[in-house]
Amino acid sequence: MKPLGPDSVVLTDGFFKEVVGRNAEVSLMNIYRRFQPTRFAALDCVKRDPPSHIFFDSDVAKWLESAAYLSVRYPSEAIAKIVGETVGKIVAHQLPCGYFNSYYQVYKPDRIFCERTEHELYCAGHLIEAAVALDGTGLNKELLPAMRKYADYIYERFYVKRDAAFVTCGHPEIELALIRLYEHTKEEKYLRLAKFFLDERGTRAEEIYPGREPQYDQTHLPVREQREAVGHAVRAIYLYIAMADAGRLTHDDALIDAAKTLFRSIVDQKMYITGGTGSNYVGEWFTEPYDLPNEYAYAETCSAIALALFCGRLSKIENRAEYHEVFERVLCNNILAGQSLSGKGFFYTNPLETNLPHLKFAHEHAVPYQPIAERVELFDCSCCPPNLTRFFGQLETALYGEEESALLVNQYLSSKVSIADMVLLLQSEYPLGGHVRIDAEGTGTLKLRIPAWSGKPTCTVNGKPYPIRPRGKYFTVKIEGKTEIALDLDPRLRFVYANERVTENSGRRAVEYGPLVLCAEGVDNGSALRNLSVTSLHGERRTEGGIPCFLLPAERLTTDGALYSRKKPKKVPCTVKLIPYYAWANRGETDMQIWFLA
Amino acid sequence: MKPLGPDSVVLTDGFFKEVVGRNAEVSLMNIYRRFQPTRFAALDCVKRDPPSHIFFDSDVAKWLESAAYLSVRYPSEAIAKIVGETVGKIVAHQLPCGYFNSYYQVYKPDRIFCERTEHELYCAGHLIEAAVALDGTGLNKELLPAMRKYADYIYERFYVKRDAAFVTCGHPEIELALIRLYEHTKEEKYLRLAKFFLDERGTRAEEIYPGREPQYDQTHLPVREQREAVGHAVRAIYLYIAMADAGRLTHDDALIDAAKTLFRSIVDQKMYITGGTGSNYVGEWFTEPYDLPNEYAYAETCSAIALALFCGRLSKIENRAEYHEVFERVLCNNILAGQSLSGKGFFYTNPLETNLPHLKFAHEHAVPYQPIAERVELFDCSCCPPNLTRFFGQLETALYGEEESALLVNQYLSSKVSIADMVLLLQSEYPLGGHVRIDAEGTGTLKLRIPAWSGKPTCTVNGKPYPIRPRGKYFTVKIEGKTEIALDLDPRLRFVYANERVTENSGRRAVEYGPLVLCAEGVDNGSALRNLSVTSLHGERRTEGGIPCFLLPAERLTTDGALYSRKKPKKVPCTVKLIPYYAWANRGETDMQIWFLA
Repeated sequence: MKPLGPDSVVLTDGFFKEVVGRNAEVSLMNIYRRFQPTRFAALDCVKRDPPSHIFFDSDVAKWLESAAYLSVRYPSEAIAKIVGETVGKIVAHQLPCGYFNSYYQVYKPDRIFCERTEHELYCAGHLIEAAVALDGTGLNKELLPAMRKYADYIYERFYVKRDAAFVTCGHPEIELALIRLYEHTKEEKYLRLAKFFLDERGTRAEEIYPGREPQYDQTHLPVREQREAVGHAVRAIYLYIAMADAGRLTHDDALIDAAKTLFRSIVDQKMYITGGTGSNYVGEWFTEPYDLPNEYAYAETCSAIALALFCGRLSKIENRAEYHEVFERVLCNNILAGQSLSGKGFFYTNPLETNLPHLKFAHEHAVPYQPIAERVELFDCSCCPPNLTRFFGQLETALYGEEESALLVNQYLSSKVSIADMVLLLQSEYPLGGHVRIDAEGTGTLKLRIPAWSGKPTCTVNGKPYPIRPRGKYFTVKIEGKTEIALDLDPRLRFVYANERVTENSGRRAVEYGPLVLCAEGVDNGSALRNLSVTSLHGERRTEGGIPCFLLPAERLTTDGALYSRKKPKKVPCTVKLIPYYAWANRGETDMQIWFLA
Repeated sequence: MKPLGPDSVVLTDGFFKEVVGRNAEVSLMNIYRRFQPTRFAALDCVKRDPPSHIFFDSDVAKWLESAAYLSVRYPSEAIAKIVGETVGKIVAHQLPCGYFNSYYQVYKPDRIFCERTEHELYCAGHLIEAAVALDGTGLNKELLPAMRKYADYIYERFYVKRDAAFVTCGHPEIELALIRLYEHTKEEKYLRLAKFFLDERGTRAEEIYPGREPQYDQTHLPVREQREAVGHAVRAIYLYIAMADAGRLTHDDALIDAAKTLFRSIVDQKMYITGGTGSNYVGEWFTEPYDLPNEYAYAETCSAIALALFCGRLSKIENRAEYHEVFERVLCNNILAGQSLSGKGFFYTNPLETNLPHLKFAHEHAVPYQPIAERVELFDCSCCPPNLTRFFGQLETALYGEEESALLVNQYLSSKVSIADMVLLLQSEYPLGGHVRIDAEGTGTLKLRIPAWSGKPTCTVNGKPYPIRPRGKYFTVKIEGKTEIALDLDPRLRFVYANERVTENSGRRAVEYGPLVLCAEGVDNGSALRNLSVTSLHGERRTEGGIPCFLLPAERLTTDGALYSRKKPKKVPCTVKLIPYYAWANRGETDMQIWFLA
């Protein structure tokens, strides 16, 4: 499948148009302000106090990439000016050989390409992605030649001379970036170098991050032999993306097969209901299959973004509705939750349950992992905020695709799409409702995905009932002339149960609405939310302060004061107010719960 | 209430006689062998490799105290010889001033009484307890004068001259030890010094263990103002014991009131169903009320022992059945579980749930807290093993008491008790059954505690039905001549529910039998035990390999393979095999579960 990009697709209105607009008009500049004194200032390449960090360049790069995408729909002189100045600094400080790294050039000039664990090629990869994006959208044409020069230098050192002190980078990213550079420039050497990095990974003992194992950065096995998603989740999925891309471009079935198997490992065994991955804060790790703790979930925003991108890449190889299904789950839950409704605050980790007394203890004592219950504008390691802006900046590319001359509708965001023989206007309430109206004009085949979350979806074409295929598949409509398609995806509330091996959720169930996972917050429902059971899905729907709420019949287990008692807890009827998970933690620190007593 | 000691009480047979015998005949010598190359060798007071640790003397002291108690019923020439040699070394290396600490004398002679956090007075306290015990049982009379000299020196430095670099010790113990020394010798100054340490604690800023808060060692408030059990659980309860003792001996109602309030804080809000306390490994801490995680429970064996001892101390002030109730819960569950059935292995922490995949991950990666699922013979910090032997060595003192000329039966272990006007032979199946037969002879009042766990207890006196008071209280029988009391405590299986605020257990229940908490092990019941629900208490009882088992009707939630599904899990009928918690982890590493789906 060939995904359709912003040349063909435009978000027209509705929920996600607002989200993207907020990212363009609020988040991007707000992140810049927070980054300016550190990340952007580091580009002056002078010693500073506090000193620069090893991966600051990658934060700037992701911001530049975000600016490239978001400026297509939201042009801004202020942003363009910052982009120009920033690229100017990079180009000005780039070494004659092509190398650029604001940390190494200033703090460790004699250690360039000596330290495998210190993110040099990771930063290079993000700069290359930024360059490709800026060139592609035309916002800046200066960074691409500079980063090609840098890529040429990496090729020279790592592939031709092979005189760097390491072979593969401790944090995958360069691989997928080089492939993007190849696809943009058609210069074969970049693909050759990416393939080299993939081929070499896991074939030798390499320097590992202190205290970590080879699994941590996926050097435990040659990539084609990797069958289980392990180690640092973001590192892992960035690698898998490159495997999928390289497999597709070089027709390497073993690479493709490994990437698909690793996808299965994630979505069949290691993914939260929110689409989050990497459940353990130790090493931000995938851990054992089915180990998905809710309260101490790590589920980094960046790894959710990585999984969404991985879905897109796999659908290019062989399109399957499931890839868009998973994309949708990640998008509407973990990714959206990574950002506050104001566009200014961010979560790095995304727990599925919060208990304020536990947080209080963790924050008052030296507990190693301290989840937070309110988003912040900046982290020490602030990789997630600009990853969100660059993700939302590319959202339009995830909606439609072309395959065997058919136009595929993969996501139902309100949008307009134009291809050679057809124009489509899609209007929907997505993700807050299931009614979709598509006005098509032209000639061709339309394939529409029925989400697996649909209840009993129905369709009419030009006012006549139209039989549709089961959910979780595509159905086809031939378009000739003006055609009006009315689709009710039926996003009805439903209970969802976890696999028996996800023992954290034994005897519990979640509530979903359409693509949205719902949750209860303490601010609406009191404390000790683990005692709540949603007893019926027939209730009332409201919108409060812009947040959709579902008021449903429920019960709360209630005991007398004894710590232990033979008395069975009473089931006290009550009403629970559920909101979408994406909207949690926007009304102050409060308890939160997704998995309710069944 | 005055507890009756080994002069009056002797265990005759049955379960606990075997436990105590095993501690005397296996554990004591096995611990010595494990301690000899390190703890005992350190008493030579020379520099060694590996170097000595700051608290090695306390391990030796608890071993000596254990030897004192256990030798009363299990005299052993080998043990007596080790005791003699060990005391000889201590006396030989004691400084002329009276000071003795094998660590400070060798490694930091110029830092004596300079470092509050380094357990000096804690070690002194345990040595004093050992000296009192050895003198009391007559096994050794040499250590007491030496330790009196040490106590006199502490009195001189801390109370008279006040020239030590700190006022109170970072780990309470000296306080309760000095009170024991006072009670044994009647020398008022030891009580005065203990009271001084209590009075001064929390009245000033003192050096705190690095990275910790004043709550950690209970210096956050003057002791009489402390109302909530906080900080390191063992430190806390050792302090509370001293508060109770000092309050009783000096008629200090404020101290007594604080001790009783702190007891309530523990048993109403911070105690596991197993009697474990201190739920968080960070700081071995009491944490927030009702925060009682099962899988990552800390519940150190030593803090369970401390709570049991605290119950005994409070009952001396004002006897209440509840103190013996809690003692029984701690004894029959957390304390017994601290030791393997072989007598050789020990748990330091006592989780209430084990999931092997989580342990695998923790052990393979640098997870800060790594619970274990199999007992070991020695820990780096090996305080628990000799604490168990000294606890079991004193067990006879916890069974009976005298109050207002009545003889109180507090625990139903098979035993014989003789007081001035009465002899009692008690035969029971305790804790594995509820039938108790008491043959009394003499004249007087007998008060028998009906455990709160009893179903419908019944009693006959000389064959005639005898009305008894409700469970959780004492009932009275007048003894004149030969009297035969037959009591059925009715230990029937029952479900127990936790307070709604213990959210870890929401929607779950435990199964108890008599004083025993039951659990399911993976070796009997497969994995993913959190899916099990015990549906009926009517089943079969067996004994397998010396372990009592209950085979009960149950259900297991079972799903298809999907990670998330709308399909409600099936409830598949099965039989669950429950064993007492004390017997878990004696058949290899396996999953374990106490709280089942309700």
